[in-house]
Amino acid sequence: MYIEIQFFPFPPPPHLISNRVVVVIDVLRATSVMVHALSQGAQEIIPVQTIEEAFQLARAYPQPSTLLGGERGSRRIEGFDLGNSPREYGAERVKGKRLILTTTNGTKAFQAVSSGKEVLVGSFFNISAVAEKCFELDEDLLIYPSGDEGNFSLEDTVCGGMLIDRITKKGGRSFTLTDASRSAQILFQKFEANIVESFYLSQHGRELVDRGFEEDLLYCAQVDTTNIVPLFEKGVIK
Amino acid sequence: MYIEIQFFPFPPPPHLISNRVVVVIDVLRATSVMVHALSQGAQEIIPVQTIEEAFQLARAYPQPSTLLGGERGSRRIEGFDLGNSPREYGAERVKGKRLILTTTNGTKAFQAVSSGKEVLVGSFFNISAVAEKCFELDEDLLIYPSGDEGNFSLEDTVCGGMLIDRITKKGGRSFTLTDASRSAQILFQKFEANIVESFYLSQHGRELVDRGFEEDLLYCAQVDTTNIVPLFEKGVIK
Repeated sequence: MYIEIQFFPFPPPPHLISNRVVVVIDVLRATSVMVHALSQGAQEIIPVQTIEEAFQLARAYPQPSTLLGGERGSRRIEGFDLGNSPREYGAERVKGKRLILTTTNGTKAFQAVSSGKEVLVGSFFNISAVAEKCFELDEDLLIYPSGDEGNFSLEDTVCGGMLIDRITKKGGRSFTLTDASRSAQILFQKFEANIVESFYLSQHGRELVDRGFEEDLLYCAQVDTTNIVPLFEKGVIK
Repeated sequence: MYIEIQFFPFPPPPHLISNRVVVVIDVLRATSVMVHALSQGAQEIIPVQTIEEAFQLARAYPQPSTLLGGERGSRRIEGFDLGNSPREYGAERVKGKRLILTTTNGTKAFQAVSSGKEVLVGSFFNISAVAEKCFELDEDLLIYPSGDEGNFSLEDTVCGGMLIDRITKKGGRSFTLTDASRSAQILFQKFEANIVESFYLSQHGRELVDRGFEEDLLYCAQVDTTNIVPLFEKGVIK
């Protein structure tokens, strides 16, 4: 099993990923929102790239079963129902609802890897379940941190490294790690005892603190709160 | 002082680096060859991208004061005087000579960053001297690992991380680290007590072992064997 993590958030060549399982990670905060919302009973999530797309799509669906969520500059978008904090996505708000989500980095990432053989949604909330699923699928793996506005992101890489650590420690199979996936695993091990420390050290984590979202850092650092493994297929996450 | 390391070996936008000091690193083995050869008295090094360019350029210079060096697939190129092992570049061979060098990754890197304000050549051989120079220059810094055929390279990142560690530990100044430069420093600290271990774990290091160049790994892991800091300027390294 070949395990790669892509350190730069540019679309990989489609032919390279058409026979690979891809795991998209945007811990702060898009994939944390997605995993949490679905674990709280949201029906499905449609990630879109622009605010205009989100409003247009919302008009095509019956109200009030559809909610608009997401952020620009970390903050809720005017006219949207929800921001980009997983704490807003509790069952009382999202159960049975369709969510249309647009965020700066995370929702773009799904377009970039849409030709993957399977596209899974990863976060600390469901990391062991994702590892289990990847192990079962037994295909070559590309972990795709969605990055911080085109830059390498520490917190997503630490999460990817945890996934690599969980998968390879299952043993009983041979794993090929690249220099990048080996490095991600080392970075995870550095923060294993204190995941949230990697958030406080990261550029995007510090921005969220500055913008008043420090509680989200503590929230998103929770490990294995759910067993669900959302799949992205035909533009929809379920 | 802003310190960035670029994890993917694509040319950075020229406007981004025109006011930055750039340090090119290709530990296995191009920049190790360059630093070692110049420390042994080579007059200058001209990095070129293709074998044809190397032969053409050699014809323009007087023989026998010019030597051709480099590799393809790690091995010496037919008709060349020297391969890409620093051990071949002792004073008895290179003193007073002009070297024309072409390698798979390292020589391309210099073209990619030629618009940098200053372009320095880094390796473990001269890491403390490069740190001292960067500290003196006191400009924003881009560390540019030349990578492994377009991929992230563990050994170059560990070397870049050592440079970051050396510079920031000088103190007395404020440093801004990005997620990438912080990660490189963590990766260096993991291998600090045993640099060569990072070579044995890396994809390119293992290839070199397979191809019979294991001694180069041990050789290139030597720290601070020289105080020289070669500069790349107008296509020439001195």
